[in-house]
Amino acid sequence: MFQHVIWHHESLMVSIAMAAIALALTIGAIPKLRSTFIQAGITGTDILKPHRPILPETMGLPAAIIYLITMFLFIPIPFIEWFGGAGISLVHEEHPSLGTFPYHRLGEILSAILAIQSMVLLGFADDILDVRWRYKIWFPAIAGIPLLVVYYTSFGVTFIVVPLQLRPWLGDIVQLGALYYVYMLCLIIFCTHSINILAGINGIEAGQTLVIALSVILNDCLYIHNNPDRTSVEVHLFSLYFMLPFAGVTLGLLYYNWFPAKVFVGDTFCYFAGMTFAVVGILGHFSKTLVLFFIPQAFNFLYSCPQVFRFVECPRHRMPRQQTLEDGRTVLHFSTVKLDDNKKAISKLGQIMLYILKCLGLLKVVRKDDQGRIVECNNLTLINLVLTYTGPLPERNLTCALLLVQVLGSLLAFYIRYHLVKYVY
Amino acid sequence: MFQHVIWHHESLMVSIAMAAIALALTIGAIPKLRSTFIQAGITGTDILKPHRPILPETMGLPAAIIYLITMFLFIPIPFIEWFGGAGISLVHEEHPSLGTFPYHRLGEILSAILAIQSMVLLGFADDILDVRWRYKIWFPAIAGIPLLVVYYTSFGVTFIVVPLQLRPWLGDIVQLGALYYVYMLCLIIFCTHSINILAGINGIEAGQTLVIALSVILNDCLYIHNNPDRTSVEVHLFSLYFMLPFAGVTLGLLYYNWFPAKVFVGDTFCYFAGMTFAVVGILGHFSKTLVLFFIPQAFNFLYSCPQVFRFVECPRHRMPRQQTLEDGRTVLHFSTVKLDDNKKAISKLGQIMLYILKCLGLLKVVRKDDQGRIVECNNLTLINLVLTYTGPLPERNLTCALLLVQVLGSLLAFYIRYHLVKYVY
Repeated sequence: MFQHVIWHHESLMVSIAMAAIALALTIGAIPKLRSTFIQAGITGTDILKPHRPILPETMGLPAAIIYLITMFLFIPIPFIEWFGGAGISLVHEEHPSLGTFPYHRLGEILSAILAIQSMVLLGFADDILDVRWRYKIWFPAIAGIPLLVVYYTSFGVTFIVVPLQLRPWLGDIVQLGALYYVYMLCLIIFCTHSINILAGINGIEAGQTLVIALSVILNDCLYIHNNPDRTSVEVHLFSLYFMLPFAGVTLGLLYYNWFPAKVFVGDTFCYFAGMTFAVVGILGHFSKTLVLFFIPQAFNFLYSCPQVFRFVECPRHRMPRQQTLEDGRTVLHFSTVKLDDNKKAISKLGQIMLYILKCLGLLKVVRKDDQGRIVECNNLTLINLVLTYTGPLPERNLTCALLLVQVLGSLLAFYIRYHLVKYVY
Repeated sequence: MFQHVIWHHESLMVSIAMAAIALALTIGAIPKLRSTFIQAGITGTDILKPHRPILPETMGLPAAIIYLITMFLFIPIPFIEWFGGAGISLVHEEHPSLGTFPYHRLGEILSAILAIQSMVLLGFADDILDVRWRYKIWFPAIAGIPLLVVYYTSFGVTFIVVPLQLRPWLGDIVQLGALYYVYMLCLIIFCTHSINILAGINGIEAGQTLVIALSVILNDCLYIHNNPDRTSVEVHLFSLYFMLPFAGVTLGLLYYNWFPAKVFVGDTFCYFAGMTFAVVGILGHFSKTLVLFFIPQAFNFLYSCPQVFRFVECPRHRMPRQQTLEDGRTVLHFSTVKLDDNKKAISKLGQIMLYILKCLGLLKVVRKDDQGRIVECNNLTLINLVLTYTGPLPERNLTCALLLVQVLGSLLAFYIRYHLVKYVY
């Protein structure tokens, strides 16, 4: 057993070293590729700066490719102990009790990389071709197919453990069967798009991703530390192998995307990040814990719903509003939506939603009409909400505030996972 | 055994049905995506037409994505007999002699799809970013990593059978070890780029690909028919599973790329096609036979070498020259290279190469100087060579002539493989 732990540590050391190399490669590659992307016309305008610079877009692509190559080269590492001089042996040489070569685990790694790479390809296609939302909402489901298929062929667990309070009625576990695959698809779609919609200011996409990645890494370490259950250790090692290089390339990208951004990350990166999280959550069997790390994203999505589903008018852009002060500094204000501009009056349901948000302290009302109805309020995004509380902020500070929210979300997640959970499971 | 054959036929029927669906989807999708690609600026000019129309480029991307989704959905099919009511069983229910679930074969399929998808991603990046040759020459090697890694973990065979004539000196087989991986990398690079350089007229990329794919399919069928060796049947079924849907999407693409082309296929398609061939050749253990199907591509590459490696002046474009006749028809002439334009005189070695080609009947000399040296001749590509023999041809007929060369190459390949081989192995 001691030998076995040592070996795990060796794989982990290789993973950490590869993460460092991936970070260095990302830092080195992005400046060199800037002009290539600009020449190819893959650019975007940084509209929150006074001089509105043109920056290269989709810089998540080189980061993702570096990550994928890193993972390609990492594939054999966890299985290195099976390799003898003349190829591999079916039975572990030093520890015959470990059984035969774990091809199912190799299959999991391959399907995980395949799903991530599918998402990178579709994300890049989206960045270049500007696919409509009605189509691209399904991209993660397509990219997730290989993952679910291999999950199925690998004796996929499809039951959930029932909370204590419901056990008298439902029993200890509930077999979800096909519904479990629907659940996983929903998880993949949620993770992928929720990062993509909490976006728009320098450093926020890569920043939130880095916080979530570090949270997953910390959670994995907590599981692995002094855990006698080999299966549990293995799935969290699996998660670490994917998360460490991912944190590396994300950090490299954040370095250039941080205020004032020199590059944009593109949908490619958001999709890539979301799928990587979904993959480790599903194959690591900690999807519920993973969702806890997405609390700010989940909140942002729910908070956006009244506008996304058009109960409340939704302008084309909901980015914060930029103002240049007399001393030359630039600050951001929350942007607002005017509900009486449109000929179509706001729906009753929309007014009720806004009223509830107001009562919860989640809405800044700017203007009411004679009958006391809300006619101007902040746009319903987490970014604007933070600005309603923190007043006008420079862009860099706004990113920091949002990343602080993300860190607090992760702390809450750990509290729920390691303390409150006792009362439920 | 009889049952087993039936089951194989069922998988094959599913594969044929999926190939038909993939063909239909490709035929349906490409016209719908034309405007999306044109809007995104992914276009090229068809310079061999009098009015030089702008056509959407990189239409190999939707074809490749349809292929990849087809393969994702096909992954579980060959293993369907292992699936019971409650997930899969490790041991085959009806035929326990078949042993445990073939995870290594699942791993092969996953790594094959991963390699193909990597090539599609890099090909698309090349089409968009216009990567330099010195970098992109290595793209197939990067995309091939997962394939070689899984080949290694799957007890990869690394010996070659020695030709009869050499056996007294080398023995029956030679263990190549690491060199075998170098050989596979070279095969991947050759297959991928050789299709990409026999290109430039309507229908030639997809057309040659279709001929090669049908040759591989025919070869697989010859192997499977009445073959008692189960392993051999399995690897050729594996090849069919990849080739049939591939032939489907290629035919769909050819339909729109045929003269007069409505779309271009892009480097994406050539890379995708080359990698798909390399993958089935390597995992199906028929890489030598596969190379035989690339005779015209290999000839085109060798024939191009004097210009590619600059022993002979190489103009930027070596496409045929277009001429509009008095009756309005357009024909293509072979294009020529002028060797006295350049201040730098042609090298001695270059003159020798041209002289040898001339003696072999592989060079059309247009002009000589006073000392009898060649100063103008056809550009060294198979397309121009065919034109020197067939005179000016309409573009459609030129494509047909080149596809005829490809078909003759395949017939020669079959003759070598099934007749001449007796004298060597």
